[in-house]
Amino acid sequence: MARVSQAHLDARRRQILDGAARCFALNGFHATSMQDVLKEVDLSAGAVYRYFSGKDELIAAIVTEVLGGIREAFEEAARQTPPPPPDVLVGQVMTQVLGLGGGEAKHGLAWDGEASFPRLMIQVWTETLRDGELSQVLRTGFVTVREAWVKVVEGYQEAGVMRADIPADHVARTMIATAQGFAAQQALFGSAPVEVIQDGLRGLMSMESPR
Amino acid sequence: MARVSQAHLDARRRQILDGAARCFALNGFHATSMQDVLKEVDLSAGAVYRYFSGKDELIAAIVTEVLGGIREAFEEAARQTPPPPPDVLVGQVMTQVLGLGGGEAKHGLAWDGEASFPRLMIQVWTETLRDGELSQVLRTGFVTVREAWVKVVEGYQEAGVMRADIPADHVARTMIATAQGFAAQQALFGSAPVEVIQDGLRGLMSMESPR
Repeated sequence: MARVSQAHLDARRRQILDGAARCFALNGFHATSMQDVLKEVDLSAGAVYRYFSGKDELIAAIVTEVLGGIREAFEEAARQTPPPPPDVLVGQVMTQVLGLGGGEAKHGLAWDGEASFPRLMIQVWTETLRDGELSQVLRTGFVTVREAWVKVVEGYQEAGVMRADIPADHVARTMIATAQGFAAQQALFGSAPVEVIQDGLRGLMSMESPR
Repeated sequence: MARVSQAHLDARRRQILDGAARCFALNGFHATSMQDVLKEVDLSAGAVYRYFSGKDELIAAIVTEVLGGIREAFEEAARQTPPPPPDVLVGQVMTQVLGLGGGEAKHGLAWDGEASFPRLMIQVWTETLRDGELSQVLRTGFVTVREAWVKVVEGYQEAGVMRADIPADHVARTMIATAQGFAAQQALFGSAPVEVIQDGLRGLMSMESPR
């Protein structure tokens, strides 16, 4: 076997992951065969199996990457001091998450297509329902994100811009739910500008507070 | 063939749908075989195929029922005059939707189990990605629900309790997204009380409005 550089190996692995992600986003994990992936990435079985032992390993790699990207988007947004208001925060996360599906492949998983990343995201959710190990990756990520966003909400409460008698974890979960639901909408109904969710949160924040 | 009453036919059909829904919620549409369904409902193949020509027809019936139940929950909540505030409204929808998965089978799909209905819901979402006809059912329902919730938001704006310069559709989509995301959390991480999302919305509503 010819010696190849690490950069070449990495690029090839990336190429396989991106192609497989395109297939999975379009047809789901179960309806996609390794033959589909080979065709999409235009590589021989031998070339692909050098990197991934099979479909399960490919699925695991993609699920882990998708969940890692989403988790990082939530955590990065929460690292700002002082924390921006919810509309800005959720808007930043959505911009980041939607960017995972295209552009310069900075975070991997680059491809064109309408709301491909959100489509892949809900495929990943469904896959974790059947797989204890992947479910654990998701749960660990959710715990971490909740902790980070609870701190954000506590920041609002300490600054006196949000009622302090509401459990911060409930607000954190709700803000995360808003982002998750909006991503699901994109997967199911097509792309929508991030302004939709930002406007919506601003509308809610402008309401009179029930006491 | 012995004559049987319509009530008996309906009950038998219901029994098959409930059993299949339990299987699908647990293992997904693709990993569930007709054999699994027959075992779960404890009926012969002949008895089941009298009602459903095969797995695809069973899936279509369940997807349609799940989406119909969710749509009805959103529409019912929106029919109140004057509309309750977002925390109450979303709380009502969540209570209704979570009730679809248990209790007295009022809306069909009754079974025990942790967050079974939300689990089924995200399986349904994923299934619609691959099926144009089912996707159309989902899209039509979403359009209807959005229209109903836009009227609710316009009600807030006309009553002067929400900023009137924000597109009502963006707020409606955001409120729907919050409910969708919270349901997804239940599917992925287990049941949580509806108070979580209600508290969270109250927290957001208590914030200072950015102008």
